[in-house]
Amino acid sequence: MKDRVYNFAAGPSMLADEVLKELDEEFYNYRSSGMSVMEMSHRGKDYLEIFADAKARLSSILEVPEDYEIFFMHGGATGQFAAVPLNLLKGKSADYIITGNFSKKAAQEAEKYGTVHIAYDGKEKDYAHIPNQEEIRLNEDSIYVHLCSNNTIYGTEWKDYPEVKGKTLIADMSSDILSRRINVRDFGLIYAGAQKNIGIAGIAVVIVSRKLIEEADPMTPQILSYQLMEKHDSMLNTPPTYPIYVLGKVLKWIEDLGGIDAIEKRNREKAKLLYDYLDGQSFYRPHAEKESRSLMNVTFRTGSEELDSLFVKEAARQGLISLKGHRLVGGIRASIYNAMPKEGVATLVAFMDRFAKENS
Amino acid sequence: MKDRVYNFAAGPSMLADEVLKELDEEFYNYRSSGMSVMEMSHRGKDYLEIFADAKARLSSILEVPEDYEIFFMHGGATGQFAAVPLNLLKGKSADYIITGNFSKKAAQEAEKYGTVHIAYDGKEKDYAHIPNQEEIRLNEDSIYVHLCSNNTIYGTEWKDYPEVKGKTLIADMSSDILSRRINVRDFGLIYAGAQKNIGIAGIAVVIVSRKLIEEADPMTPQILSYQLMEKHDSMLNTPPTYPIYVLGKVLKWIEDLGGIDAIEKRNREKAKLLYDYLDGQSFYRPHAEKESRSLMNVTFRTGSEELDSLFVKEAARQGLISLKGHRLVGGIRASIYNAMPKEGVATLVAFMDRFAKENS
Repeated sequence: MKDRVYNFAAGPSMLADEVLKELDEEFYNYRSSGMSVMEMSHRGKDYLEIFADAKARLSSILEVPEDYEIFFMHGGATGQFAAVPLNLLKGKSADYIITGNFSKKAAQEAEKYGTVHIAYDGKEKDYAHIPNQEEIRLNEDSIYVHLCSNNTIYGTEWKDYPEVKGKTLIADMSSDILSRRINVRDFGLIYAGAQKNIGIAGIAVVIVSRKLIEEADPMTPQILSYQLMEKHDSMLNTPPTYPIYVLGKVLKWIEDLGGIDAIEKRNREKAKLLYDYLDGQSFYRPHAEKESRSLMNVTFRTGSEELDSLFVKEAARQGLISLKGHRLVGGIRASIYNAMPKEGVATLVAFMDRFAKENS
Repeated sequence: MKDRVYNFAAGPSMLADEVLKELDEEFYNYRSSGMSVMEMSHRGKDYLEIFADAKARLSSILEVPEDYEIFFMHGGATGQFAAVPLNLLKGKSADYIITGNFSKKAAQEAEKYGTVHIAYDGKEKDYAHIPNQEEIRLNEDSIYVHLCSNNTIYGTEWKDYPEVKGKTLIADMSSDILSRRINVRDFGLIYAGAQKNIGIAGIAVVIVSRKLIEEADPMTPQILSYQLMEKHDSMLNTPPTYPIYVLGKVLKWIEDLGGIDAIEKRNREKAKLLYDYLDGQSFYRPHAEKESRSLMNVTFRTGSEELDSLFVKEAARQGLISLKGHRLVGGIRASIYNAMPKEGVATLVAFMDRFAKENS
């Protein structure tokens, strides 16, 4: 039996071994309930405790203010690409900042439901750049400003969020939620698919101010409606019960590590290992501009497609898997989300160095 | 450690022990991949095999015709309450047959997107009745007829589907899919949340004719769009990867049992045990009319709320759990989906008999 691999996939991706072991332990018969969690009624006592626990931990770790609600929703971030404009736009206009593939998709979806102003588009810079305040053109009439906090495909990430002049800032944080400290109050709404940093596929976490919920369009499809999610505490229908349970375990693991500042420190150390190595050599070429670099997804190339491909194959043989860049851009991508241990990154750096020497 | 309980919940509900043991076995390290299935990239080789396997098994067991597509979608059946009219209605009108709570919810959601004709409403008969052909009033202009094949809350189920005079029949089969043989070609579209008969929460299975997909509205929210599901083979975004894997295991288990006819035989035997007992006594009063009875959800009352409540509590102490009726109607409900073994039903009948004698 092969040992655990280091899984550098962009999502779904690895869970911390401590989390996976606890899930495994409880899998067949959850705490003498005679059931697996996945068999439990979402209205039963055992499951309601699991649900409340996950919600409370998320609220505590992110210091979610009293006047915000937390929803666990179906449909991943792509569901929210529609939910945000369907609930909030009501035929008006919004600003979208395009820094990569997913922010572009969110803007395209919003165009169905109102007027979309592109406040910045990084295409000319091959999405290697996160704009500064001067590069962003906000529109007077826009009722919110949407951005994607981290771009998995290009390996860029916002360091400081832009000033939005009293407008509501909305962020897709699918690929860096809970990787570093944020101030929830800077945002009207935050959403994230769980399968990168905080769990497994099939659930989106939404953190939204009660003010936005009150203003939301009640004609939104029920499954995407913020008002119905609030009314039914995310149980309008059967929620994705097992993914919510996994989320709770991941949150407990983050607390056990020391909370948001501890995980941020760990993530910065991991990213530094990789970027310091990249900056001290010339065999690999990093994609993102230095000041726009992501702590979560590190993208680079050898300069030859054949060598990129050989790199990915040889790494996989050594238990460093899913290092292939996204099909839109090619090259190599190491996704080093919360669950990736420092040793995984160190092992990758050692492999990169060997591979560079053998193939220079 | 408590042994496995018999879980009579209406959904999520129990998995076959054989299925759960296989999931448990493969949980931590799937076939020496060094990963749990829930950690796998949905674009990776291992996961693509799991995905294709689940789809092929579903197609084989249900004998899905060549000109139909199978989708695995986010959002459960409630997502489809919106997806069906959003994709197909395009402002026109449709017939909805109301035989219970969920068919009513589906109709209410459709009203947002076109004209809904109620072709039958069983409310006056307290939803104890499934209409015959003469009771259903189809509307000339309607482009489809929607029904719910089995009503979990009231314990009724269609035996023969109605003649719809050349219109497209659409069925929510969440609570009886794969419990008995059906002819897919009788339907333009079938959908089902998986958490009752074929798996766990977080996924809806959709079987739809290619003709309907071609006519579907491309302006549908992406996450609910049949055209995009077809284009991306259900991978428009990260699908609910683990629930799809569980579905595949359940389908394999059905095949191992002998396929659809074997599971139907087993289900008929289980239901007969319960209904024969109910018909031979006077302590419990069954809710559904005899000819409308469900093979999946058996609903009854003692005639006293206190005794109903005592029944549910005492049963739970003996490992027969989640027998409480839905909060809308009260009473007692035994959900005996595919995974419930015959011994579970026999144990319940023995308990019912003891309880009746002790409390008469």
